[in-house]
Amino acid sequence: MAVRIALDGMGGDYAPDEILRGVKEAVRNPSIELHLVGPKTILLSKCRELNLSAKVQLHHAAEIVAMDELPSIAMRKRESSIAVGLRLLKENQVDAFVSAGNTGAVMALALLILGRSSGMKRPPLVVPLPGREGTVLLVDAGANVDCTPEQLWQYAHLTVLFAQKVLNKPDPRVALLANGEEASKGNTLIKTTHALLLQSELNFIGNIEGKDLLGNVADVVVADGFSGNIALKSMEGIATTMLTLLRDSIADAGWRKLGGLLLAPVFRQLKRRFDYNQVGAAPLLGVDGLVLIAHGRSKAEAILNAVRQAQVGINNHLLEALRRPLPLMERSTR
Amino acid sequence: MAVRIALDGMGGDYAPDEILRGVKEAVRNPSIELHLVGPKTILLSKCRELNLSAKVQLHHAAEIVAMDELPSIAMRKRESSIAVGLRLLKENQVDAFVSAGNTGAVMALALLILGRSSGMKRPPLVVPLPGREGTVLLVDAGANVDCTPEQLWQYAHLTVLFAQKVLNKPDPRVALLANGEEASKGNTLIKTTHALLLQSELNFIGNIEGKDLLGNVADVVVADGFSGNIALKSMEGIATTMLTLLRDSIADAGWRKLGGLLLAPVFRQLKRRFDYNQVGAAPLLGVDGLVLIAHGRSKAEAILNAVRQAQVGINNHLLEALRRPLPLMERSTR
Repeated sequence: MAVRIALDGMGGDYAPDEILRGVKEAVRNPSIELHLVGPKTILLSKCRELNLSAKVQLHHAAEIVAMDELPSIAMRKRESSIAVGLRLLKENQVDAFVSAGNTGAVMALALLILGRSSGMKRPPLVVPLPGREGTVLLVDAGANVDCTPEQLWQYAHLTVLFAQKVLNKPDPRVALLANGEEASKGNTLIKTTHALLLQSELNFIGNIEGKDLLGNVADVVVADGFSGNIALKSMEGIATTMLTLLRDSIADAGWRKLGGLLLAPVFRQLKRRFDYNQVGAAPLLGVDGLVLIAHGRSKAEAILNAVRQAQVGINNHLLEALRRPLPLMERSTR
Repeated sequence: MAVRIALDGMGGDYAPDEILRGVKEAVRNPSIELHLVGPKTILLSKCRELNLSAKVQLHHAAEIVAMDELPSIAMRKRESSIAVGLRLLKENQVDAFVSAGNTGAVMALALLILGRSSGMKRPPLVVPLPGREGTVLLVDAGANVDCTPEQLWQYAHLTVLFAQKVLNKPDPRVALLANGEEASKGNTLIKTTHALLLQSELNFIGNIEGKDLLGNVADVVVADGFSGNIALKSMEGIATTMLTLLRDSIADAGWRKLGGLLLAPVFRQLKRRFDYNQVGAAPLLGVDGLVLIAHGRSKAEAILNAVRQAQVGINNHLLEALRRPLPLMERSTR
């Protein structure tokens, strides 16, 4: 049976053109029924250009949420492509919603329109990282800055379900992000969570340090939103610094440009290695519906990947798994 | 007047050879009286080789603390070069102690031998980072994983003194490491500290994100030891990953080697940019004596820099400044 996926036609830095290019690839698969959401006149003319009119269903959304818009403002845009897409999901007209739009806005509107599952107060931000040998899921990368051990326990369990059902990892290795590998390391939050996870049925491998985040030592790395965000941004900062430095030095001296040309494939490889289009979309865990958020800089390839991930998630009954009550925590620390 | 500086002859990955090479440079300056600590037979023969015997004072220390030794074990080595050097400082035979040895061991032995100043429970780990336009001091990079706002307040004030007296920055810009720049960002600890620092006399510029750590937006970046360590290790991880990837790609294909050769100066520059030898030593703040810790991978240049920093600190009366009571905190949050 075909899966029904709603896609935000206006989400992301390269919308709508790259979204549409992604759609063109996605609809080659007859088992995907694609619902495109956005201003009808814009999407209609784009669809005609690409000869897609007969292959997708258009849903009009008059408003657009900007990438840098505050979630508190975006939440009021009930006719935005995000809100309309989420309502399609709520009303069971589609099985999943995919957006490369403003993450905070998608989270806020999803909570409002779909409500919570799993008794989670606020969904964590899951970020798929480009590990050396495949995607590593970092959870929480910035949604909840003050976390309890119970929240981290929930994050671990829900993200493991995503890794199992979508990334095809039967027994994902779970780690806590900490200041050292030993169980004695970590602040009070991490030490308490460590003890809890040791007693869970998860494949918990213990603590890992920031330097091993991309090393594929673990498939799911759990952190509170504050330190998870700091890890993410610190990596981003140094990667940018290094690439800028390399580029500037090469541009600096004429004769070096030859070296730069010869090494172009290497730089392309480096760029590809850290490319957001490769790592896949992030699930919005803890809301009552299957929502995937693709990176804001997604191009056609990333959109296609996100739609495919949604398809796999639907076929593997991810939402049903996420809705089931989590295993009870052993309160070893009491 | 000459300053008297004790130097750990056995500290660091390249001890004692690189230490001695650093000493050879340092003693060219007649205003530095250098005291070298370590096993006398080893140091004596090295000094003879380099024709340094008449220029340094040797202090025998029978034991050696390994770089990976647990501080709890190292603390018992009261005849180690670290312990003997610290006792010289305690007994006022020297004005400062410099070591490139095991950081945890230096911290533990310094607390034991010198005691605390500033009413600080445990000294923070200060790490000098290679900012785009000079050194950025990250404090705490891993000593205290559960911090109070009062501790972060102390870290800020003490590290500012080091930046003023040693790095020659009259009014260092202080920032808090957080998950966003706005004052509303941060976990409870950071938000409370933010309010406190706003009312201090420091040049507090607010929050910065991990991506701006090396951007020289701030001179002193304050964090709790848990998230500070995660930032540090995350940067280390991605830098290593990127350099490895570059090196492997270049080694991969024969014709690319030419590109690699042409770009060798660029890579040297990149390496130099992130070189521990350039950023300077870290002060051990909150112990009652002037102790500088050079990076464990210090070569002669870094040792020389650390000795010079100690000299500047002595001449600018850093210790006296650190010993003065800190300004009272306005408890705006009460």
